[in-house]
Parts: sequence; C-alpha cells; structure tokens
Amino acid sequence: MITFTAPAIANIENNELRQQLQQIIDLKTKPLGALGRLEELALQLGMIQGTMTPHIEQPQIRVFAADHGLAKHGTSAFPSAVTAQMVYNFLQGGAAINVLARQHNIELKVVDAGVDTDFDNSPFKNHPQLLDYKVRRGSRDALTEAAMSDDECLRALDGGMAVAQQLSGNLLIVGEMGIGNTSAASLLLARLGDLPIADCIGRGTGLDNTGLQHKQRILTQVLQRHSNATTPLTALAALGGLEIAMMVGALIQAASDKRILLIDGFIASIALLVAERLAPGVLQYAIFAHHSVEPGHAHLLRLLNAEPLLDMHMRLGEGSGAALAYPILQSACAIINEMASFSDAGISEQNK
Amino acid sequence: MITFTAPAIANIENNELRQQLQQIIDLKTKPLGALGRLEELALQLGMIQGTMTPHIEQPQIRVFAADHGLAKHGTSAFPSAVTAQMVYNFLQGGAAINVLARQHNIELKVVDAGVDTDFDNSPFKNHPQLLDYKVRRGSRDALTEAAMSDDECLRALDGGMAVAQQLSGNLLIVGEMGIGNTSAASLLLARLGDLPIADCIGRGTGLDNTGLQHKQRILTQVLQRHSNATTPLTALAALGGLEIAMMVGALIQAASDKRILLIDGFIASIALLVAERLAPGVLQYAIFAHHSVEPGHAHLLRLLNAEPLLDMHMRLGEGSGAALAYPILQSACAIINEMASFSDAGISEQNK
Repeated sequence: MITFTAPAIANIENNELRQQLQQIIDLKTKPLGALGRLEELALQLGMIQGTMTPHIEQPQIRVFAADHGLAKHGTSAFPSAVTAQMVYNFLQGGAAINVLARQHNIELKVVDAGVDTDFDNSPFKNHPQLLDYKVRRGSRDALTEAAMSDDECLRALDGGMAVAQQLSGNLLIVGEMGIGNTSAASLLLARLGDLPIADCIGRGTGLDNTGLQHKQRILTQVLQRHSNATTPLTALAALGGLEIAMMVGALIQAASDKRILLIDGFIASIALLVAERLAPGVLQYAIFAHHSVEPGHAHLLRLLNAEPLLDMHMRLGEGSGAALAYPILQSACAIINEMASFSDAGISEQNK
Repeated sequence: MITFTAPAIANIENNELRQQLQQIIDLKTKPLGALGRLEELALQLGMIQGTMTPHIEQPQIRVFAADHGLAKHGTSAFPSAVTAQMVYNFLQGGAAINVLARQHNIELKVVDAGVDTDFDNSPFKNHPQLLDYKVRRGSRDALTEAAMSDDECLRALDGGMAVAQQLSGNLLIVGEMGIGNTSAASLLLARLGDLPIADCIGRGTGLDNTGLQHKQRILTQVLQRHSNATTPLTALAALGGLEIAMMVGALIQAASDKRILLIDGFIASIALLVAERLAPGVLQYAIFAHHSVEPGHAHLLRLLNAEPLLDMHMRLGEGSGAALAYPILQSACAIINEMASFSDAGISEQNK
C-alpha cells in the first residue's frame, strides 16, 4: 500500500498578532477598510510570516514540466512534442513566464519532472536553469494502468520536496508545462471533488467542440478504470501527472518552511488541493493569483474557498497568472510598512 | 453662456495596424488567446501609440485636490480640514498613493485645484511636488448656487489642460483628494447618466445609514436647485468639484496628446465621462484600472462600456487603484515586445 508522510505544517493562526496587524492597518491614513483586499492581503502575509512587517525577498518560480501518457489519445490541442519545445523556450527566455519573471525580478528555473525527451543529448544539457528530477519519460497511459506506479508517485513527491528545500527567498510560485495536464487536473478534480467530469473539463489550450466531446469520453473511461483510487494519494498516482505530483510535494515542503505560496491557475490549484488533503494546513500559506477561464477552476476555487486576486480571462499556465499578480503582494507589504498613520501625519479621524 | 472649445482628439482606429498587432500577438508561443485580457491590453496600447511596439515611459500621477462647499452640510464622514491635511501627507510621502507610486517609479505631483487653505503660509510653500492652480478656496455651496461660476469652471478646465501640457512621459493617472467629492461625482452621474440619485450614491469614505439618508436628501435638493443644468458643461459648473473640472481638462489635453489614460475609480471615471462628452474620442485612450465598491461606479462603468482590470474592493481614490494596476500595463507591453514567436522558438503549432 502506498503511504506518504508529510512534514508538519504550522498553524498560522495567532489571535494577538491578527489584532495587532488589523490595528496597524486601521490606523493608516485612509478611511477604514478603503484599501479592500489589499488590506486583507497585508494581514494574511503578516500572519504567514508571523510578523507586523511582512516582506518578500528573492521570489522564486519553478516550472514543473512533464509529458502525459494519456495525451496520445488526442485529449490536447497540441502534440506532446511541444512540452520539450516549450522547455527549450523557457531556457532561452522567450516564453510568457520568462517575460513576466524578468519584469518582476523573480528567479525562474525549470524542473524536468518527466518530459519525454533526453535533455542530456540536447544543447541544454547541464543548463543552470534546468533541474533534473525526471522520474520517467512521461507518465503512463491512465486508460490502461495507473499514470504513476506507487514508487514513481512517491519519487515525484519527494522530488518536489527536494526542489522546495533548495529554494532561496520566502515566496514560491509553482508553474507547469505539460501537454495533457489539463486532463489530469480535471480527472483529479472530478475524483477528489466528487464532481461530474463534464463540470471539470474545458478546452485546455484550445480544443474545438468535437475535441471536447472526445476528451470527455476518454476521461470518463479513465475514471471508470480507476474507480477504486479514491484517496488523495491513490488518485494522484492513478490519474497522474508527474509534474502535478511534484508540484504537490513542492507546495507541502514550502508550506512546512512557512513560505508564501502564490497559486497560479487550474493546474496549480489542483496541486494545492491534493497538497491540502495530504498535509492539512498548506492552504493557509496560499494566495490565489488569478481565476482561469478553464471551467473546472471555478469549482476548484469553491472547494478551496478561494477568491483570486485577478480575473484576466487567462488560461496559459507556466505560472503566468501568478507572476502577473505578484506586484500586488509587494504593494500589500509596502502599504503596511510604509504608509503613515493618522497620528504620524496629524490628520483628523473620521467623524463619530 | 458658458462655452469651452476642446482640442482635437485623434481617432486611434487603424484597421491595418489592428490586424498587424493581432497577428504579432497570435504568433507568440502560447495557445491562441491564452493570455486573455493581457492580449487585449497590448493591442489597445499599440493602437493608442500607433505602433507595433508599445511602451510606457516616465509614467505620471497628478493628484488634484480641492474642497467642496456642499461638504458643510455633512455629506462626508470626514471633516473638510482633512483635504489639506492629506495634501501635507502626500507631500511628506506617507499616503497610499505615495507608497504605490514609489513602488512603480511613477512620478507624483499634487495639484491644488481649490483646497480651502493657504499653502503660502504653510511649511509646504513652494514645495516642488505641489502645483498651484487654485481657482478659489473650495467650490461654492451647490445647495444655494452653482458650485463654480462659469469663469471658475473654465479656469479649472484650463488649469487641468495646462497641467497635462507640462507632463513628461506618455501615461497619465489622475488621482484626487477632496472631502465631499464623492457627492459631486454622484450628482454628475445622476444628471449626465439620467439615473435616480439613489443609484448613484454610497457611503463615500465611510458614512453610516443615517449619514447616507441625509446625503441622499441633500443631493436630491441640489439636483432640483440646478434642474436646468443639463449639458455636460453646465452640469459640471453647477454640481461641481474644482478638482473634478481640472481632471476633466487634464484628461482631454492628455488624450489630445495621445497619452495613455489609466483611470482610477469613481471620481476619475466621472471626470472621464464629462471629458468624453466635451471632447468625443477621449475614451479611446482610457484603460480602466479598477472597480470601486462605491455603488455608482458600476453604473458609470456601464455608461462607459468599461470593464476594469482589477476588482479589489477598494474605495480610496488618490489614484491608488490605478497605481496598483499599473504593472499590468507594463506586462502587456513586455509580452508583445519580448515573447518569442512559434517560428523564433521552433515550436509546433496547434493541431488543425
């Protein structure tokens, strides 16, 4: 039987600190509550870091990449070869996530969780931004067997934890690249959220109507094939995604180390759901960056009781929505650290 | 009779450029449309600047400050003295807008449109960040006369245009500070949007229920008093706001100079509505930063056919919502200028 022992996750709740933070925010030179969610964000960041002066340093993005055995059944609009091609694009600095990471000085590395290519025989061998945690060249075909054997799933989780242990700074964005990973996320959502598969799927990176119907048929068969995989861990192994399992491990370890987790879209959110089920408390460290247009994301956000910062109609992955929202977190820190209070500024308070 | 001759506003529409921009965006290494509103934003910025390589340089915030004669009737949660106190706070760098402007390297200056204080007899006399365009010390009491005489209204519009003519860079945020200016904005919305006053008012910076009912009674009387002020210009003069009139002038001039107008919340949006009525075409240069919780803003956004970038439940003014959204515009520029295309990166395109 597959078992996984998660590290301890500290509870961030501390009533005294919460009241102190709220008071600091309330005494800033602005009407009570006038900065809305920016105030809530400042409070959460203070609670995560256990301080009245939250700050972000050396923010990190790790893009987890892997291929999917199921993709050969035509569940994605792009061929599997694109996973490796996009890894090359990341390493050359040309993808959306590179552009956004550069804009905000976020360090970006790519983690090979299971890309179906041999990077050692590529011009990118030993590239400083490519971390080799490859478990196998693509997950198995979930239509006929578990996407990951128990051992492979545990190695992916461990790999993610190792990636997180080596991080600088205090904030992590997990991004992903994997042709077919929207299907894996939909399968996990249907199973762990006990939802009809039709509510959990969408066009991924661009399926048409016929493609969408085909995807629903295939995914329904996969769920039937693995009807006994009902625990978070067995569902993760059966329905898969090497990069998703590795993201789960990274999120758990990073929360255990009290890092801020800035959560991207549909795939990152499903990794967070699995992480929270395996290690309750992880969710307290999460800030939801954006609402993806992938239809399953709305259901997933409801399950996680989450309201993301942005709704920009995006569906790219890579961590791009999280990187786009990142400066809002910096703003929240700046507001609490730098704004004058009414007494500092000698300003009359609200009429009583 | 009051007349105002607006400068010419160039039409940004150019079908050839629109198609070129769309093609550049579509060939970037991402699924078609996957960056959602970021793509629309990149396209609009390109159209405004008439280029395939939009960029932002030396972004500017001007915070227009003035007092309101109507405020003595208790329509605001704060006393009028706070307007001047907050100007001092801006000049000392302690307000929310200072913090956000510093974060994003946006140059901030405060424009005295009509604050009811004598800055020449204050420690801030000749402060380099304080621009003196004072028309009078506070607008008149709109319950008994026009908030601005025709001449005062025109001087405020001209002052705003002069402020905009002196701007560096290519992007303008107009912010405001004026105890009572939510009332002026509500009055203008009711009149120019032909809406019931009850739909246009809210708690401003923090009124309670009794305060809100009182505000509605007062504003209803003001609208009755000025029932003949139905054109954009006569409504602006009658219902007022020296800082609102000056913002109108600044927006018109800045659009005439083809600047990007990054629009903050309720007050900035009402200034834009008046600007668009006085100088049709201004709206093309506008990007809406955030959705204010002030209830009238939703109606106003509908009138302007606008969908803001952020919805952070904010209601502070000062330009704070616009400054918070600013890095998203930088992201849009970076995406179009820096991302690789499929052919650059040698990546397989979508399955047909």
